[in-house]
Amino acid sequence: MTSIEPLREFVTLFTGLFDERSTPVEIQKTGAKLLKTLVSRDDWLPEPYTRPHPERYSQYLLHCDPLERFSVVSFVWGPGQKTPLHDHRVWGLIGMLRGRESETQFTRREDGTFAKGETGYLEPGEVSFLLPGVNDYHLVANALADRTSISIHVYGANIGGVSRAVYEEGSGVEKTFISGYSSEDVPNLWDRSRSKAA
Amino acid sequence: MTSIEPLREFVTLFTGLFDERSTPVEIQKTGAKLLKTLVSRDDWLPEPYTRPHPERYSQYLLHCDPLERFSVVSFVWGPGQKTPLHDHRVWGLIGMLRGRESETQFTRREDGTFAKGETGYLEPGEVSFLLPGVNDYHLVANALADRTSISIHVYGANIGGVSRAVYEEGSGVEKTFISGYSSEDVPNLWDRSRSKAA
Ligand SMILES: [Fe+3]
Ligand SMILES: [Fe+3]
Ligand SMILES: [Mg+2]
Repeated sequence: MTSIEPLREFVTLFTGLFDERSTPVEIQKTGAKLLKTLVSRDDWLPEPYTRPHPERYSQYLLHCDPLERFSVVSFVWGPGQKTPLHDHRVWGLIGMLRGRESETQFTRREDGTFAKGETGYLEPGEVSFLLPGVNDYHLVANALADRTSISIHVYGANIGGVSRAVYEEGSGVEKTFISGYSSEDVPNLWDRSRSKAA
Repeated sequence: MTSIEPLREFVTLFTGLFDERSTPVEIQKTGAKLLKTLVSRDDWLPEPYTRPHPERYSQYLLHCDPLERFSVVSFVWGPGQKTPLHDHRVWGLIGMLRGRESETQFTRREDGTFAKGETGYLEPGEVSFLLPGVNDYHLVANALADRTSISIHVYGANIGGVSRAVYEEGSGVEKTFISGYSSEDVPNLWDRSRSKAA
């Protein structure tokens, strides 16, 4: 049986990082350790937030800080699904929960076109970073042709509401978008009645 | 069409009250004004959180502060449904959204039995208070025999996880309970993509 407790614990501790008046990069570094712990086990994500959509990848909000200082999202990739080249404009963390994800990084030239960089693979339990000004451009895909992959992303904002951009890989032509989220619900992290009663 | 925006606005402003280092009673007083604004309109509560259960009243978590300093709950009463006599042990606010609710207050005698007080009725748009040491014992019921009633409760804790008690009205015999919540999901308050795109 899944228990939401590891996610509740993660949210509580991540929220606490903001009370120590840390810099964004300090929050990202300490937050990466918390995320690594969260994705070190795969028994806590409720089933509705693991469901692939037949036509496009899904991004389920799991938690948004009420002051919108960070958000936690479950990315669910059906076989063959991938993002276009895109940016984020806020710091990000990617923790691999299930399956395998490929990430191709890009750097932007002064003329606005892109140079393709390395493609890396993320395995369950691993965490990678995104940081504007360092590595904010990438293209992410399910590396498995026959299975669902799931990664847990954390961003330094309410990412579903951030105005950002996708790019044509060849020309660098930019198109603004706001991603929103794939569900009108988020998981209830706060029902402690079972664990306390037990 | 319902828009979650009034609830998001409420949660954002209520969270902000805690940053001003106010006392619980100050938070409760200012919070009551925010709740009055929230229940002054009935066009924002998503349908899954308005559904009565055929056998018992429902308590849907709408938001829990990640530091568990407050929680917001939708109480949905089917015709004839009511609580037993119970306490809360934290401050509370009740805002009437739809229908009509009756509240019978009780005071506890030194021997542990209860004296029944007034029964008041709450109409849409009205807000009432609960405060340990002042009025923490009551019995709440749907005052309508043929319709669902809905009230929005705010408490100074994650109320679904608080260990508190129900009482036998005559003998005062106490039974500890932890209420939990009626759903494993809460509404996604944070999808700003529609409003920003519009
Ligand atoms: Fe990305
Ligand atoms: Fe009550
Ligand atoms: Mg009245």
